[in-house]
Amino acid sequence: MSTLSSFMSHKISVKSLPHCGMKLIRTCIVVVFFYLLGSSNHNPGSSTEEVTRGVAVEKLDSVKKWGINTYKCTRQMFSERFGRGSRTVDLELEAQIDVLRDTKSKYEQILRLATALIDHFQSMVQTQQVLGDTFTDLSQKSPELQDEFGYNAETQKLLCKNGEALLGAISFFVSSVNTLVNKTMEDTLLTIKHYENARLEFDAYRSDLEELSLGPRDAAAVVRIDMAQQEYQIHRDKYERLRSDVTIKLKFLEENKVKVMHKQLLLFHNAISAYFAGNQQQLEQTLIQFNVKLQPPGSQKPSWLEEQ
Amino acid sequence: MSTLSSFMSHKISVKSLPHCGMKLIRTCIVVVFFYLLGSSNHNPGSSTEEVTRGVAVEKLDSVKKWGINTYKCTRQMFSERFGRGSRTVDLELEAQIDVLRDTKSKYEQILRLATALIDHFQSMVQTQQVLGDTFTDLSQKSPELQDEFGYNAETQKLLCKNGEALLGAISFFVSSVNTLVNKTMEDTLLTIKHYENARLEFDAYRSDLEELSLGPRDAAAVVRIDMAQQEYQIHRDKYERLRSDVTIKLKFLEENKVKVMHKQLLLFHNAISAYFAGNQQQLEQTLIQFNVKLQPPGSQKPSWLEEQ
Repeated sequence: MSTLSSFMSHKISVKSLPHCGMKLIRTCIVVVFFYLLGSSNHNPGSSTEEVTRGVAVEKLDSVKKWGINTYKCTRQMFSERFGRGSRTVDLELEAQIDVLRDTKSKYEQILRLATALIDHFQSMVQTQQVLGDTFTDLSQKSPELQDEFGYNAETQKLLCKNGEALLGAISFFVSSVNTLVNKTMEDTLLTIKHYENARLEFDAYRSDLEELSLGPRDAAAVVRIDMAQQEYQIHRDKYERLRSDVTIKLKFLEENKVKVMHKQLLLFHNAISAYFAGNQQQLEQTLIQFNVKLQPPGSQKPSWLEEQ
Repeated sequence: MSTLSSFMSHKISVKSLPHCGMKLIRTCIVVVFFYLLGSSNHNPGSSTEEVTRGVAVEKLDSVKKWGINTYKCTRQMFSERFGRGSRTVDLELEAQIDVLRDTKSKYEQILRLATALIDHFQSMVQTQQVLGDTFTDLSQKSPELQDEFGYNAETQKLLCKNGEALLGAISFFVSSVNTLVNKTMEDTLLTIKHYENARLEFDAYRSDLEELSLGPRDAAAVVRIDMAQQEYQIHRDKYERLRSDVTIKLKFLEENKVKVMHKQLLLFHNAISAYFAGNQQQLEQTLIQFNVKLQPPGSQKPSWLEEQ
């Protein structure tokens, strides 16, 4: 039991209900039904039905096994929930997972804001486009205000041109951060979900083994303890493998995040600085530097003015 | 009849229905009723009722006069409408009026666009504000990307500050152009409306006089011609007075328009150029130069983010 006790060093009681809780309760009820059905099928029947029953029994056995597993996990979950059970905690890893979830939430906020910025900015550029045309028209039809309308028309047209370039840069930023958040981070969070399920399973079989170890040691009990020890080892291996997977993925994700965000935040800053400093040349150079390709004019959504 | 013929030099047939057409038709029906009622009241009644009737007759006489005038104008309007009648036209003045209506329509378009620009720009500034705060937060919580989030936060905050100044400038532009379009131009257009009604009245009494002049010249006809000549003179004077008013107002409006628009287009251009060149000092100087006062932050409409 030295393996078990070394693992118990991090056990703490918690009151948080894991994400899979309600689903487990529902499936547990279904499983009990199948379990009872499976038990009744073990009664000896007529010899002609035995082959068919053999296949059915095999299938029901796997359902029974799954049902027992689900029952154990649900019991463990409730024990943790009501502060009676104990859970295995890797403090460092859980802190890293919390940081990842927090970072993802903050990057999602940046994505929402940058997307809103694109929308408002695009509407502004479209308005400037029409404003430029109106100023040009008035410049031609108002001899006494020709110059005033004229230079306003020129300014609006130049802003439109630069605006399209900035829109391209912000769209590229949004697209890259979106891939980081909704593909790369999401993939790691899926592994984390598997890891958290494996942790619950492992704790369920660990509790089982602990309970049996504290009971009387007759022949039947020793067999049950041996079986429980085997189950414990299987689930401990699975838990450790997934913990290792999560650790590696978190490390690579962190490196990837810093690399992607360093590049994207630099692009975002340089493009915005160039645009709002009226530096058309620097804006164009930024787009070339970060390999941002502008969308052809026709591929954009229709102007809000056209939609009216 | 020399006065009349001098006036006829500009008569042309038109098919356009004046703005007041439908209203005149409706009032005409009501007036005929009152007219008939007025005629019946002229029968001699008992002596005790005569004083009361005296007042009533006086009132009904004015209604009758108004009714006749409305009837004449409606007839003239239909004559013009169906190409039978002739109308007095001041070609130069009508061209000026057309230009004013066209200018007003174009300036209204500028107002709509500038107001839309304010809306989009305000939404953009509010997004930049939240984006700046999010970047600041992430700069503090991401040691490995502290600089990248940091300079982006600074840029967004600076843009917000300059954005508020530009919003003040565009709002001032919109407010001034709005006064020009919806107060000054509208006032001149009201005088033009009165002038157009006076032109219709004048043409109605002119047609009347022409009709009578072509008829037989017995004693009764001569009296009617004299009365028609008087009416013609009254309405000709009114028409000429209003034509003069319109001419003067158009002249002052043109001067005022050039003065206001010269100033506002310069402000619009200088503020936008300074903002989109990132020249905070020049933007502030522009606001001082044009005496633009910024609204206190609380007086603006709530952010679209807060409204969600």
